[in-house]
Amino acid sequence: MVSREARQPKYRVVADHLDRLLGELGEGAAIPAERELASRLAVSRETVRQAVQQLLVAGRLRRQGRGTVVAGPKICQPLELGSYTEALRERGHRPGRRAVSAELAAPSEELRAELDLATGDSVVHLERVLLADDLAVGLEDTYLPAGRFPRLLTEFDPAESLYAYLRGAGVRFGEALERIETVLAAPREAMLLETNPSAPMLLLNRRSLDTDGRPIERVRSLFRGDRFSFVTTLRPGSMS
Amino acid sequence: MVSREARQPKYRVVADHLDRLLGELGEGAAIPAERELASRLAVSRETVRQAVQQLLVAGRLRRQGRGTVVAGPKICQPLELGSYTEALRERGHRPGRRAVSAELAAPSEELRAELDLATGDSVVHLERVLLADDLAVGLEDTYLPAGRFPRLLTEFDPAESLYAYLRGAGVRFGEALERIETVLAAPREAMLLETNPSAPMLLLNRRSLDTDGRPIERVRSLFRGDRFSFVTTLRPGSMS
Repeated sequence: MVSREARQPKYRVVADHLDRLLGELGEGAAIPAERELASRLAVSRETVRQAVQQLLVAGRLRRQGRGTVVAGPKICQPLELGSYTEALRERGHRPGRRAVSAELAAPSEELRAELDLATGDSVVHLERVLLADDLAVGLEDTYLPAGRFPRLLTEFDPAESLYAYLRGAGVRFGEALERIETVLAAPREAMLLETNPSAPMLLLNRRSLDTDGRPIERVRSLFRGDRFSFVTTLRPGSMS
Repeated sequence: MVSREARQPKYRVVADHLDRLLGELGEGAAIPAERELASRLAVSRETVRQAVQQLLVAGRLRRQGRGTVVAGPKICQPLELGSYTEALRERGHRPGRRAVSAELAAPSEELRAELDLATGDSVVHLERVLLADDLAVGLEDTYLPAGRFPRLLTEFDPAESLYAYLRGAGVRFGEALERIETVLAAPREAMLLETNPSAPMLLLNRRSLDTDGRPIERVRSLFRGDRFSFVTTLRPGSMS
């Protein structure tokens, strides 16, 4: 086993130094130029660039104009069957949504099975950009049984909380199965989220049931990895 | 609002076509050459390359020698306070671990606070590569209070399940707080996981308590995004 010091590559040493520096500088402060950091730490500019790139992807730094500044902490959302709007408000952020589309659509075979639909039934499809403090942070595709929510498209304002609307319509949320993955943003998604196509995203796929076990919605949400994290409380599993 | 067709970029059409094709071909089958796909779909090779790249990162395809073949499904692990070894076995995979290091270390100030340690207390640090069916899929750093587990380094075989050892030592797991993020693999991590440094990873940070509320461990696990997903059952939150 090699010692701890010997295993640390240069970019890691630089990243650790920057990490401490960011804590001292505080949110919104500009970091020194690449050249200055390279000379201060006696490493190449390429090594500094690598470390800065890691911190950008990690959401510790963000670009602002031509400079690079200390980013605020990631938004930390609980994994629960609740409203994005409410979860953000509880954490002191200003939630918002921008409708990309709201329309009736014919479901795929898979979607028809997931929403317990009959042949010929249609779905309401909402696509919305999720905002936090006016920054685009997520992209949400929601599919609901059109037969069950016939007035959704005329009554519901896509800039508002869908869960608040559904609860108002008498829906009682039971439970949902959620799958969490990471993907790279596709070009169209990157454009809508004002980020670049190689940015890693958190992809959440959810199927929500009401308290009677009837499907309410099928949701695909994509969150910017540099702006979002999720937290959950774990309990021992069946085998533990 | 533009129509659904008009919004589909070319690479998306190709990705959808490939998606169907993969289902027909089945796991392990080679996909046609880029040139052939480009001519079949009447798009440029660059467009085909983009779509293939997306499917590689998504874990639908994998490189094999000089070709590209249909990958098996991602491993889907439940978010629960349990053993990796047991969770994989339950899903029909062959779990394994390879020790990178196992040593006594001095904790950082943050780690000392998280494990409720006194000044001067040391920690046991285990770093292990997680294997599934002999493929490196994760990298796990575990820190435990050395004073509480004085025989861990001599008794415990890092290729085995740590949770099984701890339960054998009388530890009763209570609950854990887990934070889930996505990051790009750092060069050293990519090397240990036999993937490339720009590969998106799922990063899980866990602090586990026993049934008396005493900290057991602090864990940082990194999972290959192309091989892993996590599932959980959501319940309505406090505000829902």
